[in-house]
Amino acid sequence: MPGNSFGKIFKFSTWGESHGPAIGCTVDGVPSKIRIDEKEIQFFLNQRRPGSSKFVTQRKEKDRVKILSGVFNNYTTGAPISFIIHNEDQKSKDYAKLKNKFRPGHADYTYEKKYGIRDYRGGGRSSARETAMRVVAGAIARKILSANLGSNFLIRGALIQMGSLHINRDNWDWNFAKKNHFWCPDKKMLKIWENYLTQIRKSGSSVGAIIELEAKGVPVGLGEPVYDKLDAEIAKALMSINAVKGVEIGSGFASAFMPGDESSDEMTLNKGKVKFESNHAGGILGGISSGQNIVARFVVKPTSSILKKKNTVTKKLKKTTISVGGRHDPCVGIRAVPIGEAMLACVLADHFLRNKIFQS
Amino acid sequence: MPGNSFGKIFKFSTWGESHGPAIGCTVDGVPSKIRIDEKEIQFFLNQRRPGSSKFVTQRKEKDRVKILSGVFNNYTTGAPISFIIHNEDQKSKDYAKLKNKFRPGHADYTYEKKYGIRDYRGGGRSSARETAMRVVAGAIARKILSANLGSNFLIRGALIQMGSLHINRDNWDWNFAKKNHFWCPDKKMLKIWENYLTQIRKSGSSVGAIIELEAKGVPVGLGEPVYDKLDAEIAKALMSINAVKGVEIGSGFASAFMPGDESSDEMTLNKGKVKFESNHAGGILGGISSGQNIVARFVVKPTSSILKKKNTVTKKLKKTTISVGGRHDPCVGIRAVPIGEAMLACVLADHFLRNKIFQS
Amino acid sequence: MPGNSFGKIFKFSTWGESHGPAIGCTVDGVPSKIRIDEKEIQFFLNQRRPGSSKFVTQRKEKDRVKILSGVFNNYTTGAPISFIIHNEDQKSKDYAKLKNKFRPGHADYTYEKKYGIRDYRGGGRSSARETAMRVVAGAIARKILSANLGSNFLIRGALIQMGSLHINRDNWDWNFAKKNHFWCPDKKMLKIWENYLTQIRKSGSSVGAIIELEAKGVPVGLGEPVYDKLDAEIAKALMSINAVKGVEIGSGFASAFMPGDESSDEMTLNKGKVKFESNHAGGILGGISSGQNIVARFVVKPTSSILKKKNTVTKKLKKTTISVGGRHDPCVGIRAVPIGEAMLACVLADHFLRNKIFQS
Amino acid sequence: MPGNSFGKIFKFSTWGESHGPAIGCTVDGVPSKIRIDEKEIQFFLNQRRPGSSKFVTQRKEKDRVKILSGVFNNYTTGAPISFIIHNEDQKSKDYAKLKNKFRPGHADYTYEKKYGIRDYRGGGRSSARETAMRVVAGAIARKILSANLGSNFLIRGALIQMGSLHINRDNWDWNFAKKNHFWCPDKKMLKIWENYLTQIRKSGSSVGAIIELEAKGVPVGLGEPVYDKLDAEIAKALMSINAVKGVEIGSGFASAFMPGDESSDEMTLNKGKVKFESNHAGGILGGISSGQNIVARFVVKPTSSILKKKNTVTKKLKKTTISVGGRHDPCVGIRAVPIGEAMLACVLADHFLRNKIFQS
Repeated sequence: MPGNSFGKIFKFSTWGESHGPAIGCTVDGVPSKIRIDEKEIQFFLNQRRPGSSKFVTQRKEKDRVKILSGVFNNYTTGAPISFIIHNEDQKSKDYAKLKNKFRPGHADYTYEKKYGIRDYRGGGRSSARETAMRVVAGAIARKILSANLGSNFLIRGALIQMGSLHINRDNWDWNFAKKNHFWCPDKKMLKIWENYLTQIRKSGSSVGAIIELEAKGVPVGLGEPVYDKLDAEIAKALMSINAVKGVEIGSGFASAFMPGDESSDEMTLNKGKVKFESNHAGGILGGISSGQNIVARFVVKPTSSILKKKNTVTKKLKKTTISVGGRHDPCVGIRAVPIGEAMLACVLADHFLRNKIFQS
Repeated sequence: MPGNSFGKIFKFSTWGESHGPAIGCTVDGVPSKIRIDEKEIQFFLNQRRPGSSKFVTQRKEKDRVKILSGVFNNYTTGAPISFIIHNEDQKSKDYAKLKNKFRPGHADYTYEKKYGIRDYRGGGRSSARETAMRVVAGAIARKILSANLGSNFLIRGALIQMGSLHINRDNWDWNFAKKNHFWCPDKKMLKIWENYLTQIRKSGSSVGAIIELEAKGVPVGLGEPVYDKLDAEIAKALMSINAVKGVEIGSGFASAFMPGDESSDEMTLNKGKVKFESNHAGGILGGISSGQNIVARFVVKPTSSILKKKNTVTKKLKKTTISVGGRHDPCVGIRAVPIGEAMLACVLADHFLRNKIFQS
Repeated sequence: MPGNSFGKIFKFSTWGESHGPAIGCTVDGVPSKIRIDEKEIQFFLNQRRPGSSKFVTQRKEKDRVKILSGVFNNYTTGAPISFIIHNEDQKSKDYAKLKNKFRPGHADYTYEKKYGIRDYRGGGRSSARETAMRVVAGAIARKILSANLGSNFLIRGALIQMGSLHINRDNWDWNFAKKNHFWCPDKKMLKIWENYLTQIRKSGSSVGAIIELEAKGVPVGLGEPVYDKLDAEIAKALMSINAVKGVEIGSGFASAFMPGDESSDEMTLNKGKVKFESNHAGGILGGISSGQNIVARFVVKPTSSILKKKNTVTKKLKKTTISVGGRHDPCVGIRAVPIGEAMLACVLADHFLRNKIFQS
Repeated sequence: MPGNSFGKIFKFSTWGESHGPAIGCTVDGVPSKIRIDEKEIQFFLNQRRPGSSKFVTQRKEKDRVKILSGVFNNYTTGAPISFIIHNEDQKSKDYAKLKNKFRPGHADYTYEKKYGIRDYRGGGRSSARETAMRVVAGAIARKILSANLGSNFLIRGALIQMGSLHINRDNWDWNFAKKNHFWCPDKKMLKIWENYLTQIRKSGSSVGAIIELEAKGVPVGLGEPVYDKLDAEIAKALMSINAVKGVEIGSGFASAFMPGDESSDEMTLNKGKVKFESNHAGGILGGISSGQNIVARFVVKPTSSILKKKNTVTKKLKKTTISVGGRHDPCVGIRAVPIGEAMLACVLADHFLRNKIFQS
């Protein structure tokens, strides 16, 4: 019931505050006999890690993950897998002055009102630091999926819009996207974004972004009608990421503009197998995966912690202003790419296991 | 675990197929001593009912709801409330010819693959007929919320885009929206939409739509971090509605374009109370309601069942074409308005009750 | 969250009051392509039905079950299966005089205090009438198990103690147990019990009973450590039946008396397969089925509704007395046999499906 | 869905193996602003700790608990509370020889068959070491209950039977029970039990026990009909403890022997308040607490790890024998007392919070 868990069969629960001694995650529902390697998990964690380029926060967190249970001689045993990352470089003092002020765009005010008490250090539980654990869970989810679906299965993500600058889809290159610090799939856009973001950062402001995710090699049949539809679960998963304000599947909001004879993907055969002639549905029909690529997009609002002075109020209800210095990302959307991938992996792993019930 | 339920404390479960003897819903987790009237529920159901204007399907379903349990002398007892609507005017024969063909854009193919068996009559379980029960559950949810939050509490919705035609927000009139069959809040747009949709219908095609929902009078504190955030739950709730392809909260996808100094809503005081100077967040901060209006939008794709001939395949994997006659909505988005309102009400009622745990 | 559902994957939810228009049940999580026949379900329902002999209540309820969804051409579709039984022979007037008095041993007082409102007619939601729906769910559960485990799988139950009279286990005859109205497995005991119960009934009192359940053909591996152990789930399932006050597995409470070298079942081989030399564990080790027969026992307290006058208080807190006439069972334990079997079937079906996650 | 969690609102999840680096627990659903002190939790843990007397295992585990999240300046924040105990004194070598043999009465065989892989060191996940975390969760549960119910609220337990030796209830002294290492409430029995257990231990065998639990000061109204009845949840909670084979509430199995005019507790008034004249129901009516003391009993089978040689088989299906040396409890029932108390506290805390939904 409490909201710190995700998934039903593949289920992970996270705990920990930004400036507590550690953060952690327990992943339950993992089938036995799946090979798990701390290094593989660390690989994904490093993608999200702060301090990796000048365009993301300069906090130095090693984010070294440690497995505490559920893995025996490198294989899962069916028991819950517990992970821990000890917090470092916390600089709690940075936050002391924010103890009595509510940062606009953050959860400070709502946590204070809901709980009557608030760990104000770096956002406490509401900090995006929690997302490190989503990446860990996602790494386990990918292992389950790969072990079952083989090498055709793949999840990947790219940044397709930064602020007002959208990539050109004609230039899309997944290999390129993997190699640059912006997850930018458009070679021609990379330099433009770099200059743009440098300016934004210098101006003391920030900018939003749109991320596109794709899952290949997903079998037909994942998703449970009618409330746990695959797209409904993906929407929840992505919307639960800090700063996300919208999610769409396939053609998404553009579907409104299409006539019905275009928006429903026609079906034909290719070498005796069902083939769809387009993918406006984003790989999901009636809430169930169709075997096409799953395509989802989500928008991340601009970082709320910025240097520019903003109006706010104090805990004791006095007017004041605030300017949040420190080491914040000018575009948190960048680091949201591996988090989005992880959440998509978790939804798919959960539904892959759920679907086993219906296989005879 | 199975996907036919929604909510955790305020929890409803639906059952029934489009052309079975009846459809139904059980609402559990309703506090006792709340006055329930079949007529009030019927009022909401009638808003969604087919056959109400020439712009929606001409199927005639009385959709007469009956309460079977959980209400004693017009008050809830704390026991589960069971509802039933007997199906009428089913014309199952219309669908017999679709037995062996997969309708593009529908769940026919994915259900067949997932379950190996399919009630092909009118979509069976995947039919939007199921949404009648969401409206019933939503009516109960509203009763719980009104009983606790008083008359300030209000949920309403409007169609803001039909096909490529967007309303003018400057003309927004909620009273007008309630009175027309399009839920159109812009008096000047109504006639234009009518002509537009008449043309679409005549051409044998269909069109998508965008709906905007608003909840007023929601207290601060609803929503459970970090995975059951209020916006994450709203996203799931709306995305689970048939034909929905995208959901956004507050400024949504437009957040990508905003600079950070604009997108985070500044705070000030008004008569000693906290007041936000804008509402880009859509009333939710860190996944918890802030006391501002909750604002959500969702997109409904064009009706997939259209007269225009489309390519598809048969169950036995032969190429064929299909043209779906019958009595379908040219814009299913219209009837999605009361369904969206209902789902929003259910999420809020669930979180209103969940939040009680933290109130001392 | 609310308590009207049982199971996680194979999940059923019941609704309805003793004297409302109907009672019902929705079974979700049933795999597709399982043959379902109303007659088979009715067969189990008839075993529990009142009025079947002079030793059980003479209320005449036909208890005719009707399937409303989830079954198409006699096979399950994977959609929720909804059942309804319309209430008959309600004689609500019998209960009007009990409106303001709390019957000792019943839920009248606790429901009144918990909910502040109470459907006093025949116990309302707390009536054992609800258990008819457990029997329906159990019938579905058996179908799932039989379809997967074959004809070796079997669940059966017997009454082993009535009041102070215990059967002689040396006389155990399962075939005999099935044929008599007491589910008595001891031919020599039957006549004694008949005389005994006739006396009890005439004296205006009632008597308790102990039931033993056995499941054969259960594969190794069902049950989820550490909180959803198979025995823990069985304990919950049986204890949730009206009037049950205790549950034990295998040697149960007698384990306290045994030395450790006797109580743990030694293992050996039989034709190359693992064989246990005894079954004190009742077929469950570490919460997981061992392949031996599952053996569980539960005790049902004497019927609380008796003719003998008892002290009680009124709703307005005045002292009074009560004598419950009407048509009550002198030993409700008898009719608890098919209910216990049904609950055991539901637990096993749920865990059979849950265990699929771990099968590769 | 996976079985490593308990509770719905007050929900705890445990992880960790007997001989892994640590064991841990995350408690979610704890209301904010409750004072938590590591020392108080340690107090309860110490009651369960091995090595505390010659009658329990001589393994030396400090069992030092550490809070990692959810508590800020000694108060709960509403965020999940994570606990860890680092394992010490593991002596894994003791278990190496058991790698290929199944210990009778243990989960070795069933885990091997269910998961196809097994952490054989000390039972791995199936070890009773996990119960340390139940005690931690129970300590938090007590804090929630005490904070809300005041000093009248109390949970306590006693050993009432060891092997074949039952206490004399006439000698019952709760204060005495608290002070001796057997939780024996009967001063005259203590010496007898000491001699008895010394003999059992020397003979290389073990013995079972029955524990009685009592909760005082529980308000009327806890428990959710009809499947999450308070007694059903207690049954599940206690049966999930390692080695437990039976649970009963109030008069339990003895109810079978009682006539109906005795077994239902009559009601009267005392100073204008409802008073029950007996407590055969064990404080629960219709699955809801009645305001009387909650009384539950459970039986713990004799320790299965004993010196006496027993028949068993190897992983490769050869016959063999086994004698489990090491440092095992001759009567594990003794250390089950604080575990049983903890589980009862968890059930009550969960239902206390669940009941808030119905309070207006």
